[in-house]
Amino acid sequence: MEAREKAVRFPANAVYDFAERTLLSAGAEESSAKLTARGLWFASVRGVDSHGVRLLPHYVKALQGGRVNANPSFTFEQTSPSTGRLDADHGFGHAAGIRAMHYAIDLAREAGSGHVVVFNSSHCGTMAYFAFEACREDMIGTAYTHATPKMRTPNATTKFFGTNPICLAAPMASEAPFCYDGSTTQLSANKIRVYGERGLELPPLCGADEEGRETRVPAEVVQLLPIGDYKGFGLAMIVDILCGLLSGMPVGDDISDMFNDPLSRKRLLGQFYSALRIDVFEDPERFKIRLQDLAERVRRQPRRDPNTPVQVPGDPEKVCQADREANGIPVGTKELAQLESVVKELGIEPLQVVD
Amino acid sequence: MEAREKAVRFPANAVYDFAERTLLSAGAEESSAKLTARGLWFASVRGVDSHGVRLLPHYVKALQGGRVNANPSFTFEQTSPSTGRLDADHGFGHAAGIRAMHYAIDLAREAGSGHVVVFNSSHCGTMAYFAFEACREDMIGTAYTHATPKMRTPNATTKFFGTNPICLAAPMASEAPFCYDGSTTQLSANKIRVYGERGLELPPLCGADEEGRETRVPAEVVQLLPIGDYKGFGLAMIVDILCGLLSGMPVGDDISDMFNDPLSRKRLLGQFYSALRIDVFEDPERFKIRLQDLAERVRRQPRRDPNTPVQVPGDPEKVCQADREANGIPVGTKELAQLESVVKELGIEPLQVVD
Repeated sequence: MEAREKAVRFPANAVYDFAERTLLSAGAEESSAKLTARGLWFASVRGVDSHGVRLLPHYVKALQGGRVNANPSFTFEQTSPSTGRLDADHGFGHAAGIRAMHYAIDLAREAGSGHVVVFNSSHCGTMAYFAFEACREDMIGTAYTHATPKMRTPNATTKFFGTNPICLAAPMASEAPFCYDGSTTQLSANKIRVYGERGLELPPLCGADEEGRETRVPAEVVQLLPIGDYKGFGLAMIVDILCGLLSGMPVGDDISDMFNDPLSRKRLLGQFYSALRIDVFEDPERFKIRLQDLAERVRRQPRRDPNTPVQVPGDPEKVCQADREANGIPVGTKELAQLESVVKELGIEPLQVVD
Repeated sequence: MEAREKAVRFPANAVYDFAERTLLSAGAEESSAKLTARGLWFASVRGVDSHGVRLLPHYVKALQGGRVNANPSFTFEQTSPSTGRLDADHGFGHAAGIRAMHYAIDLAREAGSGHVVVFNSSHCGTMAYFAFEACREDMIGTAYTHATPKMRTPNATTKFFGTNPICLAAPMASEAPFCYDGSTTQLSANKIRVYGERGLELPPLCGADEEGRETRVPAEVVQLLPIGDYKGFGLAMIVDILCGLLSGMPVGDDISDMFNDPLSRKRLLGQFYSALRIDVFEDPERFKIRLQDLAERVRRQPRRDPNTPVQVPGDPEKVCQADREANGIPVGTKELAQLESVVKELGIEPLQVVD
């Protein structure tokens, strides 16, 4: 669900270039700037705007404030044939994540599977960005991160875990990879904000107020509710076990707050990445053909609402990507003003609009 | 939520022995009988009655009908340092699953992680049974199975995936392992039946009728709704990718039906088991202490309902297990009659009630 505020469209590759130039101008070393810019582009072009180019001003401030290390030394230690640990040295989570997934892929080449935990990390955007890397190698990729505490615990009055997403991507025969990438809360804070901007009531079981009472008024929401009540809570705890406990980072409500903590404070996040070779279980071509067929069987199921397609995970992002690669990435007025002030401050070339 | 029908209690170890004797009498070879009986006991003692001793008469019929091979040859093939495939030869899924998890653990000892896909398998009960095995070795265990098609696809009128559960268990410092073991539907068919028996209306977003319309009347439910709508659907598809596509077994609504298919028909199910060594990422003692602390922090959160505890995944099962080990496993009148007819048919000693 997109905000209906006025937006102008910019060519997708121009957004990528702009993000890279901005991060370089703000002091990020080349590889960090490139991988983070690609992550922002990847989210924006697929319609995951909460993790897209609108975060660029925040990232610039995080560099300037010292939260994010502009010139990190990533250190990888292989700990067994299939596992390793990556110290992100407080650099961008995007850059650390791509490195980690590439190490996981390298481990999987030899060992069948590879698993890399990242520590001393920061916000890393959309998890699909990392999982997709494995699919290029005919592997299944999984990616997890813990996050700012926002999810209300079942029967508690307080938030504890973050939106802790789960992501798995797998290659298909004749289209971009299958990809599930979803938080363990029903809605994101960003989507709740959009309901508010449109003057809409929230669906049931999405948000709770300061005292932990469910509310359907977007402006009252300060806690998010997990999918399936205790089930989503359990899944969020699994993600924290992988990302927080295996990495040695803080867990639960000890995790730092992305927007409310000082920009000098390190995030101290952890992420967990895996690559699993398909050919050690099944012929990859047969796997991809059968996954393609499975997706098409889902899409062909009879519709309840004849005007709404039956979709598999990743379909809305594929539709959006086709549109945005052709017609540009929309940037809302508010985000545009923030980007323009960054342009002015750093003295760089602004984004050029689509003709 | 338990049925309120009249129940008698049997000592937990007597239930285990009885299940083993029954399966042996029905022709199952020793290891299959032992591992399946332990799986039924494990589910019953932890309160997961849908997967407990009440399934014993069904399993006897599955042996007699030829669906389940009483004397399978499990064949394991290691396919890389961290992966392997287990042909279950249509034996009990419980027996195949424990073997598979033990192979995964062995692989992990050398390679850091181990992943075993099972094919030609059958129903395997509660996934926690397998994941727990890894915790004894200071590893994290995960277990997945696909299942009888029951979940309605978002915006479709029809069911497609099963309840496809996700399970992860991890060792704790001073209590039994943390364990999340949950289907990707809001409620199981069994729990919906219990609502019906109590004359209660269902909570929202749990079930749908023949045409895919949501209903809150338990008797009308023929399709189950996923947790978080498209999110639970996506998670169920992930489980089918791991269990069905990697194993080469049927997927989606091609999967056989546990109760409605002829008992001569092989299930052709797949399962996916992983073991992940903790010590390749973090000191296991520190991990277990921190997980213990994390669970206790969750439990100490302020309660909305002061009479209901705030719990972490697995807490209800731990409470139930303490009660049932002390006071016996309750078996309802209907299930008891079914067990008694099995006793008569096989000519074995019946279950002895708690004094």
